[in-house]
Amino acid sequence: MEEDIIRAGFREIKRKSEVFGDDAGAFGIGDGWLVVTNDMLVESTDVVASMSQEDIGLRVVTMNASDLAAMGARPLYFAFSVGLKESDERSARKLFRGIQLGLEMYGMSLISADTNQSDELIIDGIAVGMAKSLMLRKNARPGELVCVTGDLGKPLSALLIELKGMEADEGLRKKLYEKFLRPVARIEEGITLADFSRCAIDISDGMVKELKAISEASSAGIVIREEELPISDEVREFCRINGLDAYLIAMNSGEEYELIFTIDRDKISSLEIEFTVIGEVVEEKGVWIKKGGKTERAKDFSWRHFSKELF
Amino acid sequence: MEEDIIRAGFREIKRKSEVFGDDAGAFGIGDGWLVVTNDMLVESTDVVASMSQEDIGLRVVTMNASDLAAMGARPLYFAFSVGLKESDERSARKLFRGIQLGLEMYGMSLISADTNQSDELIIDGIAVGMAKSLMLRKNARPGELVCVTGDLGKPLSALLIELKGMEADEGLRKKLYEKFLRPVARIEEGITLADFSRCAIDISDGMVKELKAISEASSAGIVIREEELPISDEVREFCRINGLDAYLIAMNSGEEYELIFTIDRDKISSLEIEFTVIGEVVEEKGVWIKKGGKTERAKDFSWRHFSKELF
Repeated sequence: MEEDIIRAGFREIKRKSEVFGDDAGAFGIGDGWLVVTNDMLVESTDVVASMSQEDIGLRVVTMNASDLAAMGARPLYFAFSVGLKESDERSARKLFRGIQLGLEMYGMSLISADTNQSDELIIDGIAVGMAKSLMLRKNARPGELVCVTGDLGKPLSALLIELKGMEADEGLRKKLYEKFLRPVARIEEGITLADFSRCAIDISDGMVKELKAISEASSAGIVIREEELPISDEVREFCRINGLDAYLIAMNSGEEYELIFTIDRDKISSLEIEFTVIGEVVEEKGVWIKKGGKTERAKDFSWRHFSKELF
Repeated sequence: MEEDIIRAGFREIKRKSEVFGDDAGAFGIGDGWLVVTNDMLVESTDVVASMSQEDIGLRVVTMNASDLAAMGARPLYFAFSVGLKESDERSARKLFRGIQLGLEMYGMSLISADTNQSDELIIDGIAVGMAKSLMLRKNARPGELVCVTGDLGKPLSALLIELKGMEADEGLRKKLYEKFLRPVARIEEGITLADFSRCAIDISDGMVKELKAISEASSAGIVIREEELPISDEVREFCRINGLDAYLIAMNSGEEYELIFTIDRDKISSLEIEFTVIGEVVEEKGVWIKKGGKTERAKDFSWRHFSKELF
């Protein structure tokens, strides 16, 4: 979908909630915030052959729960609309079983659902949660540290195996696919973070894209130190075999559902979650990568570029 | 979509909100209820040639706002996920303009939105509202009166012109199409009703189907008096020309977005909205129609039956 068409469409819409266009929208209720998000999964663009119906169902819950986590909200309720292309009871049951799995994992209850027939499988997931305070993209301030949960690169590595035929032996492949097929939203981390951080985003499109969103919303810059990126041995091994640059994979891997957040230096020692400090917020706008002695603009690639343009 | 597949799927889902499966779902918050609904529009099944992109956008808001109205909730926020099939800026703008029109009509603000590319136009609308008390399908009690807002039959009449080539001169056609293309959700009526009624439903699939839902959920029956049905002169004229039974059209016309509600006899004089008393709640389960001296089971037809099986 072309960006300018989306922008043109959204210009028509004048009535927006107080918090709109972040990972989720929100409105004040009592002394907290009610947080609402929706994210649609379309078979032709979001599903690959190795995903089972159960993987798909779980994924729709995860990608929406993750948007709540990025705002610091506790997920409470889930809703979905599904367009099923065939009257196949077996598939439908598996899909719904995946959704149920997600509801259990994230402690959510189903509040509303709608079932339709369509030309391809489409599921729109909707998540509703509550937050005491919100972490917003616009709140990054120069001087703060930039951190990320978990490790980076597995989903993109798996996607390159799946769609570009890149190489990995069975054992390696299995380890890379685990997170690709069953990513986990960082719910407890998000809730904990909201007491310490005012700015977070989840990695759905890839770290560079997410950092750009923070940079633009906050009118600040972000410098990432290459050697600090949390890249697993598996991703490094995969990159070595296929002649890829591991830091580019880590910076552009999407559907990670890790949380990127910014935080004051003096608060990180109190933070009881696992995370890695990867850089800092600076005055000069843009997203930068510090490699050895050099600082350059971070490259923003989609997975499609990874065999065509780079290698 | 086959009913048993949907049922089989939903059996997989164990975690449900306190209020689930009504026009909308709800959970208690403060001393009221937060009400959430979602309803998907799929081009291949829900859109006909005479609907403009603006009509479609407005409709998605209306059908969701109407579900809130049926629960007695005031609409507050709207969200949507859209799958657009072409990169056509003109169409996208019109679609979004229709959504904006709906937001203005119903006093809602956009809280979240997601844009995708898909094989056909699909829009999932999500509405969030608040209610002091809820009107639920399960609350109809024998002895209560059954009432409906507005008049019935125009959308189905228009659909029969559109899809079955039934006859109507230009003036009549225009009057029938008005409500078909631009139905209006009964927001203020729903909010007012919540102080007087404990049971309501909106007419999206046709009155017989909605009454059946009330009957089953309440374990009670409903008797409708044919001569009381609010049928406009236009629908009567259309039925006369095409040899149709006006009461069958009124009872099976969908996408009316009128509200059906049940109410104690002694409360209706206090009710300051426009409505028609059309029947009453009885002990014996089922939906019944009283024609002249006879009482028979109400027939439940979809529009597809109206040329094939009935006439």
